Order: sequence, then C-alpha cells, then structure tokens
Amino acid sequence: MSPLPPGSTLGILGGGQLGRMLALAAARLGFDVVILEPEPDCPAARVSAHVIATAYDDPEGLAELARLAHVVTFEFENVPAKALSLLAELGAETAPGARALATAQDRVIEKTFLNAVGAPTVAFAEADTASGAIEAVKRIGVPCLMKTRRDGYDGKGQAWVEHLANAEAVFHRLGDRPVIIEAPAAFVRELSIIAARSRAGEIAVYPIGENHHENGVLRRTLAPATASQAIIDQAERIAAQILTGLNYVGVMGIELFELEGGRLLVNEIAPRVHNTGHWTQDGCEVDQFEQHVRAVAGWPLGPTRAHTQIEMENLLGDEVETWVKLAAESDARLHLYGKREAKAGRKMGHINRPMPD
Amino acid sequence: MSPLPPGSTLGILGGGQLGRMLALAAARLGFDVVILEPEPDCPAARVSAHVIATAYDDPEGLAELARLAHVVTFEFENVPAKALSLLAELGAETAPGARALATAQDRVIEKTFLNAVGAPTVAFAEADTASGAIEAVKRIGVPCLMKTRRDGYDGKGQAWVEHLANAEAVFHRLGDRPVIIEAPAAFVRELSIIAARSRAGEIAVYPIGENHHENGVLRRTLAPATASQAIIDQAERIAAQILTGLNYVGVMGIELFELEGGRLLVNEIAPRVHNTGHWTQDGCEVDQFEQHVRAVAGWPLGPTRAHTQIEMENLLGDEVETWVKLAAESDARLHLYGKREAKAGRKMGHINRPMPD
Repeated sequence: MSPLPPGSTLGILGGGQLGRMLALAAARLGFDVVILEPEPDCPAARVSAHVIATAYDDPEGLAELARLAHVVTFEFENVPAKALSLLAELGAETAPGARALATAQDRVIEKTFLNAVGAPTVAFAEADTASGAIEAVKRIGVPCLMKTRRDGYDGKGQAWVEHLANAEAVFHRLGDRPVIIEAPAAFVRELSIIAARSRAGEIAVYPIGENHHENGVLRRTLAPATASQAIIDQAERIAAQILTGLNYVGVMGIELFELEGGRLLVNEIAPRVHNTGHWTQDGCEVDQFEQHVRAVAGWPLGPTRAHTQIEMENLLGDEVETWVKLAAESDARLHLYGKREAKAGRKMGHINRPMPD
Repeated sequence: MSPLPPGSTLGILGGGQLGRMLALAAARLGFDVVILEPEPDCPAARVSAHVIATAYDDPEGLAELARLAHVVTFEFENVPAKALSLLAELGAETAPGARALATAQDRVIEKTFLNAVGAPTVAFAEADTASGAIEAVKRIGVPCLMKTRRDGYDGKGQAWVEHLANAEAVFHRLGDRPVIIEAPAAFVRELSIIAARSRAGEIAVYPIGENHHENGVLRRTLAPATASQAIIDQAERIAAQILTGLNYVGVMGIELFELEGGRLLVNEIAPRVHNTGHWTQDGCEVDQFEQHVRAVAGWPLGPTRAHTQIEMENLLGDEVETWVKLAAESDARLHLYGKREAKAGRKMGHINRPMPD
C-alpha cells in the first residue's frame, strides 16, 4: 500500500476513548475519520466526520465502512471474526491484520505464539472441561490463575486457584468455558512497552512504562521508567520479535513482568493503542495515537524519544468530578473522554503530569 | 460565569483551520463542539459534534447555536455586528466580547484604543474621502501606508503611497472606502506575543515569536525568539495593557514591530488564536488552542512556558503536496487542515520543527 494522502479517510471499529484519541490524531494529520460503533453518541463519533451506528459485525454497516474508509483499524482487540472476514471479502485494507487480532483474542494462542517467537511467558496449560481444568491445575501447581481463553479484560474473566480442590468450582464460576491456567509470576514490578511497526517493516519503540494496577485496572503509568540497559534491551528485543512475528502494522501495547534479577516475561499483548501509552501524549513529540495512524496509513514512523518524564493517572468513575481541582492544577494535563455517564470504575479520562527533572 | 463542566458544548463561529484546532483542543478537555459556518464540509465541522451550515448572521442558525452552545467563541474577528447583537439578544454567552471584536474590526478604533491604553503604534490619520486622504497623507508624510479601515487581512486592502500625488489614486484603488493612513515603521524585525486572559482576569503570555512574512502572508515563526529582557518586559506590559483595557477573555495575537534600539510598536491585534501561535502546539505544555478554550470556558489558564524552541512554517497552496517528504522528516511535526482544495497561497497546514538546543 502506498502512503495514504491527507484527505483520505481512516475507518475505526469502536468508538470509545481510544477511538476518540485516534480520531484526534488522524485529524491533526489531515485525515477524515469514520467510526463504526453501535452507540451513535459515543466519544469518538463526536470528533469524527462520519459515524455508522450498527453492530460491529453488521454487513451493511461494514459495507458502508469499506466504502468510506481507505484503511480500517480497531480500537479494541475483540473484534468479531465475522467483521474481519466481511471486511476482507469487501476488499477493505485493515491494520493490524486478522492474524494479530486472532492471536490476541485467545490467551492460549497468544502465549503459544509468544513462546514460539522467543518471547518468554509464565508456564501455562489449557483446559476445555472441568476435569481438564483439574489436570491442568495439577500440572501447573497451586496457587495459579485460571482465566477464560477469550473476552477477558481489566481483571475480568479470571480468578486465583489457591487449592487443587477449588479448581472445578473456579472453572464453573468462569462459565464452563475454555480456560488457560497460568503459573503465577513472581514479579517485582509491571512494565509495558509501546511498540510500532510500519508497513515497510520499520520498528519504533517508546521508552518503557512502569505500571501500577488497582483492582485489576490500571491506575498509574510512570514513563520513561527507571530501568537498566539490560532491561531496556530485553524489552526492545521482545517487542521486535512479536511485531515481526505477526508481520504487524500499527501500535501494540506489550505488558511485561519484571522478575527478581531482571528477567522479563510477557504478560499479554494488546494489538492497539494502549492505556499504558497515554503518557506519550505529553511526553513525546509523536504520541502513540499519531504513531498508529502513521503506521496504518503507510507513513513512516515518527520519533519515539521522550522529551519529558510523565506520570499518567487514570480518572475512574466519579473521580472525573474533581475536574475543577484538576483544571486549576498547573502541572496536570487533562485528557477527558466526553463519556456521558461516570459509572463506577469506568475510564473517564486521564491526567499526564510532567515529573520534575 | 462558573467554569463550564466537561461535557458542555463550545460554539465556534467559523469553520476553518483555527476552528478545527480549537475543536480538537476542546475535545481533549471533554467538551463537545458546534460549528456555525456556511460551508458544511469545512475543516472544523469534520472534527465537531454538530455543524450549523448557515450564514454567520442567519437568525435561525444563530438561534440554534445559542440553544446548543454553553458559550460561543470566534475563529475570526470580522464577525458581522448583526451576529453579535443577535447572540446577545438570545442571551448567549460570548467570548471574547463585542468590544474586543469591534476594536479589532476597525484599524482606526484599534489604534486609538491602543494609544489610549499606552500601547504605542505608528503615527496614523484617518480619511473618508479622496480629499481627506490627500490631507492625511500630507500630515503623515510619504512614503506611507493606506489601508481600508475594515476587512483587511494577509496584506489585502492596503497599498503604499510613495508620492503625495498618488494618494487619490490609491484611495480609489482601495475602493473609495474609509481608510487609515499609517507612517511606516522602521522596524528591524516583526515579533508577536500570544496572550490570554481568563474570566477571573488572570493573564498569561507565551514567549515572544519572531515572524517572517512573504507577500504579506506569514511564512515562518521562530519561538521563543531571542530577545532581551527589556523587550520581553515591554511586550508583556503591552499585552497586559491591551487585554485588561478590553476586559478581554480568551487568547489574543498581538503583532509587534521591534524598532532600532529595542522599542516596540503594536502593529495590530487579532482577538483570537493566531497563526504566529501555532508553534505552541509542539513547544509548550498547553497550546494556544487549549488556552483559549480554558479562558472562554471559565477555567484557570494553563502554563505558557516553552519546553522546546520551535520553527513553525506555513504550508501554502500546493506546498502541501510535499507531504510525502514531510511525513518522512523525523523532526517535522505536521498539522494539516483537511482543506479539499489547495488554492494558490491558501493556508493548507503548518509544520513545527523542534530546533536543536
């Protein structure tokens, strides 16, 4: 694909905050945006030229999307397989591609792929039945984590198995669905690396972020994180192995565990812009959103160096109601998503705070 | 006015690139935007929640704008007086206010105001007739500049008078309209200062920019410009005098002449975000667009310090067709306006280039 000229239209499946921030970045480069999302009053639609308000796998909606958009991307990885196959039939250019999405949608396929390209993970086993789950827990040992293979996010669809005797109950609690059983990672901290790959195969990675979760949801990212050169080298090598292995196009968020002694394991990958990359908006010349637009549009990647160290903090639920205080805080760069309702735990916005030198 | 909560709607009269970049900044803070602009496919409409495609002074359009918007602002100063009076009748909150717009719309009122608040300008005289113009040119001396009092921009509506004998011909050439006759400024360079004033009366100014024009159109701004503390102090004092004098709310661009010896004169004021302030997008934590949104929404102002020195270059007409080269230039931050047609001299986008330390 030759680089898309400004004035072309970028299609985005999904209209949440990630779609919104992608749309804003696309606009800065002179692109128009069309959003496909069931909710017409979604955050991304209000900053985009067009909105198609249908289900993600609606054939008419997708046909309209393919007609309007010169390239289609995604703000979430759980895109229905039907949507992808319909887009392919319609001849729509999509990025990232079907393989990356399929890999990220299933924790077993994901970890199998990661290990195959030399990106280490915790030990894991899979199970489709209660008895299989018991066997798998035996093999991995307790305590271990049982997670549904598909559709989990922000700590949902997973539970600890403390004793072998609980394995069956946890399997039922997760809905009697295919699961992955993972050995716990004895990590000292959670890191992530935001990486991009262009259509030409060029790879660019941002400095590492250090992440802090609360109740399974990201609370804070500090980036660039303090890290030894050995850790930075490992993370960059892992990113390159993953992106090259998937023939990936776009930005990917790669969550890492740092073990005692400095070895890194990959926790999971997200084939899209990522919450732990929001710091780039105020820390880098080209943020992860513009970088993703550049990659999917066939443009060369932008620089990824940080000009400022940033602490990013998510605003969850009614925390957004502190906006008066935040608006007055000279060092708080606000990014609010325009969501109508501040449901408990919902990501309503984030703040980037420059750290003193 | 108490600060507007995120989720409120900002109305913008005008849908060009300034409206577009204001809309993008407003979205970042969680605001919705409604654009009133005759051309429905304008650059700003494609990144806004609503567009009202009527004439600027259309009573129904303005009524709809007043109904949707919690506050109304402008991307250009030549707003028809009728639009302002209709908005006032409708009870719409507007910022900046009618006085600032009226002052900036008429070069004689503007310079009279500037001198009254202690902001020095070149000597000037006014004339409504050909004979008056001859008298005025006599008083100011040749060479001098004759400009229409109203509706001039980017070097349009003005001409040099080299000899007294030409005064009448120039007056006719400018359309037999009320004019101002200005003494030439023997300036060593053109500077500008972007200043903001909040509803609470707080004033914040960005570092000075040094501007280079070609054929009356801005070509480049370098900011922060190299300038003595005496010049910076003068510029900041002038900005405060003007904004306070107008009880101004919002961002204003103030064009300055630096004379031999370091004295500053005000060339003109623009009661809006300004082309010479585009460098703030990549040079400052809070750019002029967010600053303007903050001010008109009744928020406190953000910081104005520069973290990076920037050279801003306008992309005029078909220069935008070099986008492939620009996209590949690692140090070129692109801002493209999504205009459909690259007419000669038209502002199609700009590039901010970080300067080496």
